[in-house]
Amino acid sequence: MSDYVGDVNTDGLDADGLDTVGWSDGAVRLIDQTLLPQKLWVLDIERVADLVDAIGRLAVRGAPALGVAGAYGVVLAHDEAGGVGDTFMALVDTIRTARPTAVNLARMVDRVAALVSEGRAAMLDAAHRVKTDEIRAELAMGENGVRLTTELLGEGPVTAMTVCNTGGLASVRRGTALGVIHTLHDQHRLTEAIAMETRPLLQGGRLTTWELDRMGAPHSLIVDSAGPFLLARHEADIVYVGADRIAANGDTANKIGTFSLALGAQHAGVPFVVVAPESSVDMDTPSGSAITIEDRGSAEIRSVRGAAIAPPDTNTRNPAFDVTPAALITAIVTDRRIVRLDRGETLAETAP
Amino acid sequence: MSDYVGDVNTDGLDADGLDTVGWSDGAVRLIDQTLLPQKLWVLDIERVADLVDAIGRLAVRGAPALGVAGAYGVVLAHDEAGGVGDTFMALVDTIRTARPTAVNLARMVDRVAALVSEGRAAMLDAAHRVKTDEIRAELAMGENGVRLTTELLGEGPVTAMTVCNTGGLASVRRGTALGVIHTLHDQHRLTEAIAMETRPLLQGGRLTTWELDRMGAPHSLIVDSAGPFLLARHEADIVYVGADRIAANGDTANKIGTFSLALGAQHAGVPFVVVAPESSVDMDTPSGSAITIEDRGSAEIRSVRGAAIAPPDTNTRNPAFDVTPAALITAIVTDRRIVRLDRGETLAETAP
Repeated sequence: MSDYVGDVNTDGLDADGLDTVGWSDGAVRLIDQTLLPQKLWVLDIERVADLVDAIGRLAVRGAPALGVAGAYGVVLAHDEAGGVGDTFMALVDTIRTARPTAVNLARMVDRVAALVSEGRAAMLDAAHRVKTDEIRAELAMGENGVRLTTELLGEGPVTAMTVCNTGGLASVRRGTALGVIHTLHDQHRLTEAIAMETRPLLQGGRLTTWELDRMGAPHSLIVDSAGPFLLARHEADIVYVGADRIAANGDTANKIGTFSLALGAQHAGVPFVVVAPESSVDMDTPSGSAITIEDRGSAEIRSVRGAAIAPPDTNTRNPAFDVTPAALITAIVTDRRIVRLDRGETLAETAP
Repeated sequence: MSDYVGDVNTDGLDADGLDTVGWSDGAVRLIDQTLLPQKLWVLDIERVADLVDAIGRLAVRGAPALGVAGAYGVVLAHDEAGGVGDTFMALVDTIRTARPTAVNLARMVDRVAALVSEGRAAMLDAAHRVKTDEIRAELAMGENGVRLTTELLGEGPVTAMTVCNTGGLASVRRGTALGVIHTLHDQHRLTEAIAMETRPLLQGGRLTTWELDRMGAPHSLIVDSAGPFLLARHEADIVYVGADRIAANGDTANKIGTFSLALGAQHAGVPFVVVAPESSVDMDTPSGSAITIEDRGSAEIRSVRGAAIAPPDTNTRNPAFDVTPAALITAIVTDRRIVRLDRGETLAETAP
């Protein structure tokens, strides 16, 4: 494994910007997100064990990004095993299970590994397709999101609020909710992006601000609990959030804090928009009450980036996600459609 | 200035518990809150400059606590000046203006200094009365809060949610909203207290958990944005919050995060109760829109207890307080009355 280190090191990366995950001459290349925003460190990973380690310690995170990393990981496994066979299969399995909850990871590993009989070139092509499909979906979400925004607010400039990190760092290049903000900025229609810091893990403070800075977009950071109040003061025109899972009735599970922001948006009369790839829509889950919410334990509440903020044995409740009822959601935007829940449209009736 | 240091050092403090501010043999004795929860450090302050410094760096905070500290400070000024005169008046003025926004500080300094012609003993008696009046008000708020709780929820056990620190550390012994929780606990009616950490300055994580621990009350700490979701999941029965100012129509300014919690309480159908001394009711302010909200700048957003959580030059919006509309408030509890806004009662009609 060789490391590239620097404040901003984009050597060898796509001219269009910095890809979160890619393939570079026999290695999986990815940004080590644990070091952001203090340092931009790009890893070229040549061994499967290093890839599994990177996934486990969240150097790469976000379901789409994990899917692409896993897809390329199958090619790494081929090279490391010196071809196909039991060693190859065992290595593939360690990647596949590196994070059991990220369904994209297993799904994309399987898609590429299914081509094992066709040889390395076919598998690498398939991995490239996973990545390019992802990039295409991101661009489509951005365009659909801006189209909806124009429907809702007209052609003028927009101040947008968002939570967590839903940008290129969670996917490949542009992301979901933050991708819409990116597209608005490309079209010179972004007045400002307001990012919630997103305790406990601070993806908004650490990652979203960094991405907004890189795209040259005006932005401000706020504490999470200020979001609803700033909406009440009319300091933002619209809210965009991502989704971890969208139930058949439109109820949406997303990072903790999404629900309180939706309450604030409803109180202020501000549109609240969910942006996610079509693969996040789960028609087998009838409603939000069927979604299990992970409690992540106490450590990440009791301290922040190593600094203790509470007595060391304090009990916590730490739901990592919340569920926003469909009634609080103006519209759901995917790479293939816009579903106006506020007009009574449903996911089932608008299925692409 | 002599320091007492220890993990738990209550030597010489009131048997009833640990007073936040008091008088000890020629010194203002107070808990240095900047070191909590890691360390309980009690300061005996014998010089006015040290008291002004302690106020400025928030070693003592909270309007009632500042009022008591200022009251005793006048006696310090007398001793340091060797009597009354210009030096005394100049020292008193430095205390009076140590934090200009805390109206209690100037008001209590003036109350004691007005007795200058009656001598030191009269001033010390007046300062003691400021403290005992404060303690009496705290006990009354606790009792009124529990009475209201029984009205609303019946006689059973209660899980209560709260924000910021409104306990003895913000006043003298028991506080306002946390004082109600304390009284519930005394009456064996507290199932659990759920404390929001209260970014940016984390008074909930650092101070409220510490106070709950000291009183032996079961409690959990949560990130601020989880509050509304936990209410939606019926994980708390009631919300108690403090107030920095209550307008004539019942709109209430309080720590940022209060408003989003009120939205969550309304959505969940959970009572939302404001607890504050009568002196926080400001009938000269007609409504919340007349309250100026302080923006405290970027430093406390960009880092947490010394750890950077965002790029160093990130813009922020940092309202220190928010305004909760009266329509979201079930009742206001003071040391002298309970005002059931949910039943159409008003502050003007119920004036004590």
